[in-house]
Amino acid sequence: MGAYSIGFDIGGSHIAGALFDGADELARLERPYPKGEPEKAPALIAGMTKALEASLGAGQSISYIGIAVPGSLSRDKRRILNAYNLGFEDTPLPELIENELGGRINVLMANDADAAAWAEYCCGALRGYENCLLITLGTGVGGGVILNGALFTGGMGNGVELGHMIIDRLAGPVCSCGVSGCFEARCSATAIIRRARESIAKNEHSLIYGACGGDAQRIDAKLVIDAAKRGDGEAMAIFNDYVDALGSGIASIINTLDPMAIAIGGGVSGAGEFLLEPVRKNVEKKSFYKEHAAIVKAKLGNDAGIVGAALLHRTAK
Amino acid sequence: MGAYSIGFDIGGSHIAGALFDGADELARLERPYPKGEPEKAPALIAGMTKALEASLGAGQSISYIGIAVPGSLSRDKRRILNAYNLGFEDTPLPELIENELGGRINVLMANDADAAAWAEYCCGALRGYENCLLITLGTGVGGGVILNGALFTGGMGNGVELGHMIIDRLAGPVCSCGVSGCFEARCSATAIIRRARESIAKNEHSLIYGACGGDAQRIDAKLVIDAAKRGDGEAMAIFNDYVDALGSGIASIINTLDPMAIAIGGGVSGAGEFLLEPVRKNVEKKSFYKEHAAIVKAKLGNDAGIVGAALLHRTAK
Repeated sequence: MGAYSIGFDIGGSHIAGALFDGADELARLERPYPKGEPEKAPALIAGMTKALEASLGAGQSISYIGIAVPGSLSRDKRRILNAYNLGFEDTPLPELIENELGGRINVLMANDADAAAWAEYCCGALRGYENCLLITLGTGVGGGVILNGALFTGGMGNGVELGHMIIDRLAGPVCSCGVSGCFEARCSATAIIRRARESIAKNEHSLIYGACGGDAQRIDAKLVIDAAKRGDGEAMAIFNDYVDALGSGIASIINTLDPMAIAIGGGVSGAGEFLLEPVRKNVEKKSFYKEHAAIVKAKLGNDAGIVGAALLHRTAK
Repeated sequence: MGAYSIGFDIGGSHIAGALFDGADELARLERPYPKGEPEKAPALIAGMTKALEASLGAGQSISYIGIAVPGSLSRDKRRILNAYNLGFEDTPLPELIENELGGRINVLMANDADAAAWAEYCCGALRGYENCLLITLGTGVGGGVILNGALFTGGMGNGVELGHMIIDRLAGPVCSCGVSGCFEARCSATAIIRRARESIAKNEHSLIYGACGGDAQRIDAKLVIDAAKRGDGEAMAIFNDYVDALGSGIASIINTLDPMAIAIGGGVSGAGEFLLEPVRKNVEKKSFYKEHAAIVKAKLGNDAGIVGAALLHRTAK
């Protein structure tokens, strides 16, 4: 394969595409996602491809396109099984884009969390660790796993859903997937917000209440973590339980897969060492092994999906 | 490598060794473990090797010895880090046995749960599933993982400790490892016995109480499961929570690794379909994927360790 590729990160609000020479970005485009008209997406992506290609010199061409998609994929990665934010259900998106381009360019596809993990492994915080994983702490909890230097998308190819390990079976709460006590139900930004909302309903004297003015809609994870940084009791209780739950999820992964490194990404990881340092101490107590995975902050942020998509040809799966 | 090998299963009470032609057992020996004198084990194993070798025809020889050990191993599988039941700590057991045999036979080593998983994959319930795992429900909860047709002993080589995934972080109980809510603390035979003992202290009218005559020492997992089979309320409450906990542990593994098949072994698996059928239904509700791992009973029972040890040359690691 040649050096040039295009990576697309297809989200519910925007499609971002970038031209790459290996891992170096040369040009980028962004377009609003055709909400409610998903059938327009293939032609839109093909158009963006042509526009990005045009910035190449004469005689230069693109080897392939990679797309990162927020949804479940078929085992052969040729169909989106469902991507509710995009409006796709059982859609052969790679083929539709290939057809729009007259069949001259191959389209590879990955789940967006898998693409992000792959990017962190190829040129981010996970570089050099051939068995490693990324955990993203955002609206949900996601992640991707690298085994033996290749993206691991499940032993049957169904995917990897780290957010749906069960860490609090009896204590709950019930996850958006309907199961009690999932990692995601405890460790998403949503979980922090839920608890902060419960807190302001009971206590009007906390920094959380002050910062949001009692308006539950104004609470986000950063507001709660900032209040914890300033020593607010309510915020610290939420934060400390969050650290303990995150430590349990990470320890479960360590005791099962024994990875060399775990990168923490997603919005909540913006808390940096204020979060990671107590998490490391918590994991230390729960890991079965003395020497275990390094726990580091993810590096690529919002670019992880687009970079991972552009580098998908480097993984066998 | 030639076809003949010897597998040893080294336990705290006995050492069992058997001569194999491929996966076919030709002869077996058993000796008491030299309790309190572990330094005698290498010579004992070498002696058993010579005795088993003697049953081969003239000109026939053994390619290698495999040993299955209940303990933590170094990453290169040349040292036992600790095996408390055997009295070994930081001991190069393979090398000690090789020396006793004058250096003419190589000794491969695996953790006993890993060896058992490998045996189930090579010639038991996991045959044909290149990504799969064994969970053993005994005094503790253990297991081994096969990925891409090879024994997976952790991304750093530290091992795989499925029993120390955390499934009940807040609800507990505290595991023998010191962490709250491990899979093992809920799903070992020991966990069933603990709860049955609590039950007879409170309720003298249950079948559990009747079957053990109120003697807590006489309770084992089978007694409790038999009482549940006969519809005893106390036993059914323990059994149903056990099924739910086991379902959560298995679902966590499915959502993380998406294996093709999971075999259930160890003493508690003796309950057969009475256990497995409700566990499958429970997992069905908690698995993120519609089509997920088959859940089957392990086949090789107590022979798994010895068979897996004898076939260790078939795995790369």
